[in-house]
Amino acid sequence: MIKIAVDLMGGDNAPEIVIDGVRMLLEKDADVEILLFGDEKYKFEHERVTFQHCTEAITMEDEPVRSIRRKKDASMVRMAEAVKYGEADACVSAGNTGALMSAGLFIVGRLPGVERPALALTLPTVDDKGFVLLDMGANADAKPEHLEQYAVMGNIYAKAIRKIDKPTIGLLNIGTEDKKGNALTREAFTLLSQHKALNFIGNIESKGLLSSVADVVVTDGYTGNMVLKTLEGSAHNIFKMLKAEMTKNTKNKLAAAVLNKDLKNIKNKMDYSEYGGAVLFGLSGIVIKAHGSSDGVAYYNALRQAKESVKENVIAAMREEIAHD
Amino acid sequence: MIKIAVDLMGGDNAPEIVIDGVRMLLEKDADVEILLFGDEKYKFEHERVTFQHCTEAITMEDEPVRSIRRKKDASMVRMAEAVKYGEADACVSAGNTGALMSAGLFIVGRLPGVERPALALTLPTVDDKGFVLLDMGANADAKPEHLEQYAVMGNIYAKAIRKIDKPTIGLLNIGTEDKKGNALTREAFTLLSQHKALNFIGNIESKGLLSSVADVVVTDGYTGNMVLKTLEGSAHNIFKMLKAEMTKNTKNKLAAAVLNKDLKNIKNKMDYSEYGGAVLFGLSGIVIKAHGSSDGVAYYNALRQAKESVKENVIAAMREEIAHD
Repeated sequence: MIKIAVDLMGGDNAPEIVIDGVRMLLEKDADVEILLFGDEKYKFEHERVTFQHCTEAITMEDEPVRSIRRKKDASMVRMAEAVKYGEADACVSAGNTGALMSAGLFIVGRLPGVERPALALTLPTVDDKGFVLLDMGANADAKPEHLEQYAVMGNIYAKAIRKIDKPTIGLLNIGTEDKKGNALTREAFTLLSQHKALNFIGNIESKGLLSSVADVVVTDGYTGNMVLKTLEGSAHNIFKMLKAEMTKNTKNKLAAAVLNKDLKNIKNKMDYSEYGGAVLFGLSGIVIKAHGSSDGVAYYNALRQAKESVKENVIAAMREEIAHD
Repeated sequence: MIKIAVDLMGGDNAPEIVIDGVRMLLEKDADVEILLFGDEKYKFEHERVTFQHCTEAITMEDEPVRSIRRKKDASMVRMAEAVKYGEADACVSAGNTGALMSAGLFIVGRLPGVERPALALTLPTVDDKGFVLLDMGANADAKPEHLEQYAVMGNIYAKAIRKIDKPTIGLLNIGTEDKKGNALTREAFTLLSQHKALNFIGNIESKGLLSSVADVVVTDGYTGNMVLKTLEGSAHNIFKMLKAEMTKNTKNKLAAAVLNKDLKNIKNKMDYSEYGGAVLFGLSGIVIKAHGSSDGVAYYNALRQAKESVKENVIAAMREEIAHD
């Protein structure tokens, strides 16, 4: 039986979507147990749910490090403690990302040898293959050695969870030539080229990200976050313009009605929530950030990802490979 | 009479689109003269064109600095020399971007006080307003003071060429809060906040770029280039998916035919060539990179931009404001 600790109070649409996601998981998966942390007024009964009442919650406005230290009875803090003390195998929250990273770092703790944890996200591609991008923003000022560790962790994750035999690893850069980029990427390129255990394929450009150019793409947290927000913003704006053109007169509305279902496919394809949550790599336990503003299905996907990560012993593999380095 | 030096040999579609663009400019604009540098076999007669035969050309594969130094009779080198020696007021090339930056730096030369030139591009927004983004990749490892100078130069350009009275200046960052970002953006934020002559509006996120959040957006060359390629790649992939859905069966093809013209508007809106070329800021002359793979209209827009920059005395304004700093 795999035990997952869940923060009932975190996220824009909590606790509703958290409850929806938990119910879905319990229904579809017989070998998981949930430790649910939150306000008891949302308590619900299920033979595989243990409810833990918490008197506090961390809000989106809370200052990450301080709130984790001061709000001792916050659902997010107690959820992370459950992993720390071995009461749960993994934890999931849709709350304040900064606070969750702090809870991961200061409560769950880093794996020995990991200098900086990284936030990893599985992003969609046009051919539905998807790829793992990290760091999405845990560490804005990365060193070349950090990028090398991100590659090692991304490699383990892609093998274990995405079932890719020998994942291709790309370094996100502003050109594909070996010497391209800034000081950070040029040095990281050298380190990655020398790392024989990795299937490093060199520099890749951001314009190829949606075309499945690599299974794992490593970058610093500043760039990763920037690229993610650029992708989100351009998709959002293009779809907004499409909608405006398609509803501007009756003729267009009628034509759009014919295409509507097929065009929704594209929008769904660009929807990150289908691919689960963001995982904090480099900690001694599984910590997953579910999408705060999405629905029960997205939350369910994040929970399933947590379960899968426990089942495939991702943490043990990272512990071993990073201690080796 | 404004004199523009033009590199006939640079760009994927040279010399055809260069000739098309030059012809368009001469037709629409009576007060420009063109100094055309290239192979005499493409020579064409016009009372306001002076043809200068060159025996060499810089290719896309040439190593930038070396080619500029060794190919003394290359059309791009001689075009830049025409600006250096005052024979022309501005120069335009669609050739190798790195070589053009080197030609700008080593032949035209930096303005006194400018530490690093920057490549600036005017990008489209959903509301057609557009904005100036710099640096697009002239300097991959920028310091906070460089970003401050980019803001000063972008401000002058937005006032003179885009006719904006008090341009809003944004710092590209991974969050809008004052303390967000990496070491570079945090320090640049402090410098820009203290710069009273600028209408600095703080940090802006890349997801807002297409929504006209600022008139001038400053960032380091690595990030600027990364964001540009991400925008290009996501637009390209979304349009590719749209096309696939719209042509997958007869029903969709018929509906798409109704919408076709209106949807092309969106694609055109996302087309950078409409907005002219990229300008190298910080040199003692106007140096413009036209789009190498586009058409005569895009080249014409770059030429017009060169003429406008001369007419509005952009270089004199930059010389004065930067010497003041």
